[in-house]
Amino acid sequence: MTDLVERLATAVGADSVVAGDLLRERATSYWDPSPTTAKALVRPRSTDAVSQVMKICHDLDQSVVVQGGLTGVVSGAVSSEDDVIVSLERMNAIEDVDELDGVAVVQAGAILQNVQEALADQGFLFPLDFGARGSCMIGGCIATNAGGINVLRYGMTRQNLLGVEAVLADGTIVSSMNRMLKNNTGYDLKQLFVGSEGTLGIVTRAVFKLFPLPTSRQTAMLATDSFDAVTRLLRTMHSDLAGTLSAFEVMWDRYVAGVTKHGAHVSPFEQHYPFYVLAEAEGSDAAADQQRFEALLECAFDAGDIVDAVIPKSDSERSTLWNIREEFDPLLPAYLYDVSMPMKAMVPYVERVEERLRAWRKDAECYVFGHIADGNLHIFVKPFDDGVHHEECDRIVYESLDGFSGSISAEHGIGIEKREWLGKSRSEDELRIMRRIKATLDPKGLLNPGRLI
Amino acid sequence: MTDLVERLATAVGADSVVAGDLLRERATSYWDPSPTTAKALVRPRSTDAVSQVMKICHDLDQSVVVQGGLTGVVSGAVSSEDDVIVSLERMNAIEDVDELDGVAVVQAGAILQNVQEALADQGFLFPLDFGARGSCMIGGCIATNAGGINVLRYGMTRQNLLGVEAVLADGTIVSSMNRMLKNNTGYDLKQLFVGSEGTLGIVTRAVFKLFPLPTSRQTAMLATDSFDAVTRLLRTMHSDLAGTLSAFEVMWDRYVAGVTKHGAHVSPFEQHYPFYVLAEAEGSDAAADQQRFEALLECAFDAGDIVDAVIPKSDSERSTLWNIREEFDPLLPAYLYDVSMPMKAMVPYVERVEERLRAWRKDAECYVFGHIADGNLHIFVKPFDDGVHHEECDRIVYESLDGFSGSISAEHGIGIEKREWLGKSRSEDELRIMRRIKATLDPKGLLNPGRLI
Repeated sequence: MTDLVERLATAVGADSVVAGDLLRERATSYWDPSPTTAKALVRPRSTDAVSQVMKICHDLDQSVVVQGGLTGVVSGAVSSEDDVIVSLERMNAIEDVDELDGVAVVQAGAILQNVQEALADQGFLFPLDFGARGSCMIGGCIATNAGGINVLRYGMTRQNLLGVEAVLADGTIVSSMNRMLKNNTGYDLKQLFVGSEGTLGIVTRAVFKLFPLPTSRQTAMLATDSFDAVTRLLRTMHSDLAGTLSAFEVMWDRYVAGVTKHGAHVSPFEQHYPFYVLAEAEGSDAAADQQRFEALLECAFDAGDIVDAVIPKSDSERSTLWNIREEFDPLLPAYLYDVSMPMKAMVPYVERVEERLRAWRKDAECYVFGHIADGNLHIFVKPFDDGVHHEECDRIVYESLDGFSGSISAEHGIGIEKREWLGKSRSEDELRIMRRIKATLDPKGLLNPGRLI
Repeated sequence: MTDLVERLATAVGADSVVAGDLLRERATSYWDPSPTTAKALVRPRSTDAVSQVMKICHDLDQSVVVQGGLTGVVSGAVSSEDDVIVSLERMNAIEDVDELDGVAVVQAGAILQNVQEALADQGFLFPLDFGARGSCMIGGCIATNAGGINVLRYGMTRQNLLGVEAVLADGTIVSSMNRMLKNNTGYDLKQLFVGSEGTLGIVTRAVFKLFPLPTSRQTAMLATDSFDAVTRLLRTMHSDLAGTLSAFEVMWDRYVAGVTKHGAHVSPFEQHYPFYVLAEAEGSDAAADQQRFEALLECAFDAGDIVDAVIPKSDSERSTLWNIREEFDPLLPAYLYDVSMPMKAMVPYVERVEERLRAWRKDAECYVFGHIADGNLHIFVKPFDDGVHHEECDRIVYESLDGFSGSISAEHGIGIEKREWLGKSRSEDELRIMRRIKATLDPKGLLNPGRLI
């Protein structure tokens, strides 16, 4: 082990290697304050340095866990005392912005919100966005193919990723830093690294497509009487707002009741409704866009699809509404799930989960919200009890997907947490091919062992 | 060989196997009327039948060439007398449309235009679109990650592909028919088949995301004095039309002069300008959208970025404009190229190509148009002479990319035609990994041999 730490320090500089007490001062993750355990944590400053680290680890058959912002919820970045950690935290630069093409070159350790803000200053939208924006890193977004609240309009991380540089388990640097929307010259290797949760390579740099920064924004929180009304509303907004609808977040009543119960948030409505929608569009002509947005809401109100509505009159009123959706601390601790399924399955699925929870324990409850246009529901299940109920909750949530063509992970990934359930979403043939690809790129199985596959 | 044909006929039915004279009646491709040569052509009706064919071929070490609509321009689907052809032509159904989710399940042999039209009848836009729409098949679009004229807004084939079913070289069926926008459960295997030109598997079925059918369309052909004006115009339209800009096709003067020279098309302008733009937006409110579109053009006119403009007053006038861009027969025969590069490289690149062409032959000329927002230029080079000049033209077009971070293939793919040039766009490390992936999925090298990698 001393040999390992010395070799790492010699290769990338002593200040880039963290071990011992300094390492234990670091929390395991955003969710777990207990000390990080590992042989050492390395913080390389360049792709070449990552490559050197991997060559040493490969030489010594040393397992490596890759870390970004540590906000993942499937224990994908949790290390053991046998691992070396490669943290991308020092590779946090925005290297280049091509204003003509609308393209940015970003290092993997850049924090999402910093990237969003720096690019906004240059007139560009970096559309990837979700609650962990202030801590999560670009490399983690790529490794998990992160989604979030704007997927409906802009797609997941994969959709806007033009190029990637990654380091394989043996230290090989795969540099596919394409900057063009169109480039069909053989296998698109970057796709291998997107959503593979660091098991095939360590992403160090990436090229992203940017969008013009919208100059107008329309927001509303809407109440509906039924899920059918919600889906009609989605379809109308999606088509009549001509592609400017950027968010359509649906909250089940119990979710809103849960987060507003103890006063952390206040519901903007005086009574309860079965479903709430937080809808947002972004355009380029404030007056005309707001008029079109409100006219559409009026029509939907007349048609009965909306039964109550709140339109924020300021940024702070808007934030108050978004906080209901994004700041769900009042519901924690709870078991967090992230499933996806066709929209028609959502109501029967949630009913099935509720039924099985009730059959299991009288005090069991679930709280649901989702990006339904993406097929994605997030479910919080309680009671949470130190892992005691974890297995049963998993079983209920995942087994309830049977027959609905759903997936056990919409955007959180598999990590360690969902690994035993992967077979619910992928066939034996698919798993076999995944294992073959893993063996091809990381034959020694050194990268993020025990995760995903 | 008789044994082979008999085994195939037994497995999938005699009427599904075409050989001998009937096979020779088929043209080699859309571009080459000479007879098809192969041991046999098989037209399976199902994924299972494709799997059976591949099992037989795998058993006999029989090479297989996959065929769709035969419109590809890199000889990717051209067979030799040693090959068996698998044609997807009978798998041409639209199997399912989920109107709630906006998702279609399509077989690989469906012709693009048929898919577009059938889905439009149901109120959905299938946004993939390009000149070969009337002949090309969905499987070929996936295998080549086809692009075309709407990539700016909707992305290439890959962007809207949710799921795929494919048959590997050994007959294994990989069914990843996901229907959700979000599904992160392990390696996204479908990505392997997109753009790999049939070398890793035969795509048989696919799931696509659909879009609401736009109800308004705004078109204009614009003339500009400089490429800088073109890029300013692009940026303004892209941002001020709030994501509704769906096409922005740029034609160099010589291209328009070439296709209008002999009267097949008529330029809408009375004089020549350095660059022409065919711009199109699609929205949901005809009157308001047209007003915004024309107001934007007026501003650009006042700013001097547009020096002349034509707005079609009918569908037929619109078609007349689009035909200038899409029907380039007056320029044929010519060597067709399809390169990509950052926008800032385009003018110096085209100048370099022109210079080198002139240095090579006094009568050599090139005609350029492109989807510049995608980084994509199409270049026609003449004189075309039975392949005599092919090598030299390739050399000039591809070697001129040096230093511009460009790609030898934006959307046509590599096939046989560009294989020797692949090293211009991909590093030795990338090629090595591609070969490892090919060896992992098709260790005998049976699928589309001699193509791409």
